[in-house]
Amino acid sequence: MDLLPHLKELSRTTPSKILFVVLDGVGGLPREPGGPTELAAARTPNLDALAEKANLGRVTLVAPGFAPGSGPGHLSLFGYDPFRYEVGRGVLSALGLGIELGPDDVAVRGNFATLNPDGTIADRRAGRPPTEENRRVLAKLRERIREIDGVRIELHTESEHRFVLVLRGVGLGDRVHDTDPQKTGVPPLAARPHDESDEPSAKTADVLNKFSALARQALADEPRINGVLLRGVSKRPVWPTLGEITGLTPAAVASYPMYRGVASLVGMTALEVEVGEDPDAPEGKLAALKAHWEAFDYFYLHFKKTDSTGEDGDFDAKVHKIEAFDALLPELLALEPEVIAITGDHSTPSVMKAHSWHPVPFLLYGPNLRADAARRFTEDEAAGGALGDLHGTHVLPLLLAHAGKLQKFGA
Amino acid sequence: MDLLPHLKELSRTTPSKILFVVLDGVGGLPREPGGPTELAAARTPNLDALAEKANLGRVTLVAPGFAPGSGPGHLSLFGYDPFRYEVGRGVLSALGLGIELGPDDVAVRGNFATLNPDGTIADRRAGRPPTEENRRVLAKLRERIREIDGVRIELHTESEHRFVLVLRGVGLGDRVHDTDPQKTGVPPLAARPHDESDEPSAKTADVLNKFSALARQALADEPRINGVLLRGVSKRPVWPTLGEITGLTPAAVASYPMYRGVASLVGMTALEVEVGEDPDAPEGKLAALKAHWEAFDYFYLHFKKTDSTGEDGDFDAKVHKIEAFDALLPELLALEPEVIAITGDHSTPSVMKAHSWHPVPFLLYGPNLRADAARRFTEDEAAGGALGDLHGTHVLPLLLAHAGKLQKFGA
Repeated sequence: MDLLPHLKELSRTTPSKILFVVLDGVGGLPREPGGPTELAAARTPNLDALAEKANLGRVTLVAPGFAPGSGPGHLSLFGYDPFRYEVGRGVLSALGLGIELGPDDVAVRGNFATLNPDGTIADRRAGRPPTEENRRVLAKLRERIREIDGVRIELHTESEHRFVLVLRGVGLGDRVHDTDPQKTGVPPLAARPHDESDEPSAKTADVLNKFSALARQALADEPRINGVLLRGVSKRPVWPTLGEITGLTPAAVASYPMYRGVASLVGMTALEVEVGEDPDAPEGKLAALKAHWEAFDYFYLHFKKTDSTGEDGDFDAKVHKIEAFDALLPELLALEPEVIAITGDHSTPSVMKAHSWHPVPFLLYGPNLRADAARRFTEDEAAGGALGDLHGTHVLPLLLAHAGKLQKFGA
Repeated sequence: MDLLPHLKELSRTTPSKILFVVLDGVGGLPREPGGPTELAAARTPNLDALAEKANLGRVTLVAPGFAPGSGPGHLSLFGYDPFRYEVGRGVLSALGLGIELGPDDVAVRGNFATLNPDGTIADRRAGRPPTEENRRVLAKLRERIREIDGVRIELHTESEHRFVLVLRGVGLGDRVHDTDPQKTGVPPLAARPHDESDEPSAKTADVLNKFSALARQALADEPRINGVLLRGVSKRPVWPTLGEITGLTPAAVASYPMYRGVASLVGMTALEVEVGEDPDAPEGKLAALKAHWEAFDYFYLHFKKTDSTGEDGDFDAKVHKIEAFDALLPELLALEPEVIAITGDHSTPSVMKAHSWHPVPFLLYGPNLRADAARRFTEDEAAGGALGDLHGTHVLPLLLAHAGKLQKFGA
């Protein structure tokens, strides 16, 4: 359900500040039946003390059973129903690489493939080449294909067989079908617009077909990477911003491009974060928060490693990342935000080595709290919390309400 | 909310098997305040042992306060939002009698009525005649009315004053208003299409008006049953099947026609079940499961008597039916489905002698479970379960997710 139109009616600006912390993929599962989850296993004296005073609940980001990607998980937490506010794969990949996209640009997810002499697909991922190989081949393409029919061609390595193609031009549409047939033994499909009468999308399809042909020529002497498959043709979506909807001045404190990008989609200012050896280190983020504390009233603060350690299947490392956040917490509280909330954009149980659908714990501390039996920030304790079971899109209205920024609905 | 289009995008086929048990109307209420419900009163060592290891939750099938009929309750559990996927009363009654309906056929729910000499309705249910009387009168009609304007007329006794009329022909519509005015002292209404320009429905209305007139003639000498009221004019709905949406090969193991029929509406194969003296006996169902275990990957297994004993107001009998299922449970677990789930399609508290809106307990056992404090499969324990409060349409995505059949939503 889309609550944004209602929030637009009811929001009001006040000086109070909201600090909204997302520990990526923080929800987990026990390593063995009956055992603790990563959050329960972690030693977190500061989180425990906050949980004592706070209200807890459980958040489902998309719907029960649906494991959210990072885009949908975050959009939900920002108040944007992920079924309604969809981001194309090309745009998401571009955001993940920190590529700036203007309103006219089209982003496409590319896969290197191996084609048979008869043009049919032998391997949709070209044997998952090393990323270095990807860079080498992409450099070759970059040299040969700079422009097609006045459209500038930009190519970026993602990893292994994956790259991002950006078309920079004017009058380009993005309602174009994939050229990846999702199976081998058949040739790549031609790019086609969803609707033949949609001229901008027909133009994009034409450029993509020419690109595919040129790429094949350029790669004719390559033994393995000799074709491309294109997917997720998309433009940066144009949505009402968080500022327009709520009157907030929102800032994002995140070091990874993907999260800075998703935050920018909803109109947050992505603050400069100084990154050292560990891009996820707290120092740069804390410095960014302190430097801009007066200028904004909503801060989205992101930590990545709780997810990556889960994806790696490293239970203990995830526990340590949670403990590292716990150590930082007093410095965040010292900023004295009126409302602080902590949650995840999805679960990433290390036993699954993947994003999962399990609800994430949600902690809210600020004025006007009910009594709450939860004593720790864990999945189990959150299940009995005063906030109950929430959808991701309920988080924003709760933050606004506790910060005194939401007026009564109706008379 | 309709999750099916999203499930269609995200589902993938795997060898894992799902066994989904519906204990009809299993939710209950205490016989006296403070006492146990039927589930809590039952001795269920096997269910208790499973509940220890499983995750529990509470399911609302339609919406709080809405007592579901068998159709909507089951559709919700199968993933079909019952507000969106509606089945006409005529079709539901036909399914309950095991009547096969083709795509051109129209089913109508009929009530025998008593009409005054001036044609106004004296009794909308003709004094609730014994079912035998219904059969006698219907035989008379069947003899006199075989066809109207090329449309074959088929009549089936349901019980007391209720019968089912099936029109078998071509070019018949089903957007036709009821002839039952829902009150006495006025004549039956003429059948009318919702929209006069809808010719197929106008044709159906015309046939129904001729049928009503012929029935009145044929029953002119009857003292009590001398008129008919027609409701719920409907065709078998055409929906995307569970197989099309999820890639599952779903089978239904149910002995009562209604449940086989509803399962067939969503594209399940209704397996042959050998029925002895007790149509609800477990032996035939277990044999059907075993015989077809390799051929399908989703089994809907239905037991009826937990509902009928509740409808009878027989608390102890309902307790015994729950205990009988408990005794069968080890044989179901021995099939080793990757995921097993147990729930009801609604509550039927024996103190109410009727379907009720109270949420039903839901048990899920399979991979990737959270810790769960629930120790028994009861309404109270389910209220604190790790799965929280769910809607019926969340059941299918959760089954798919735990069975490893659902991919990540978005990147």
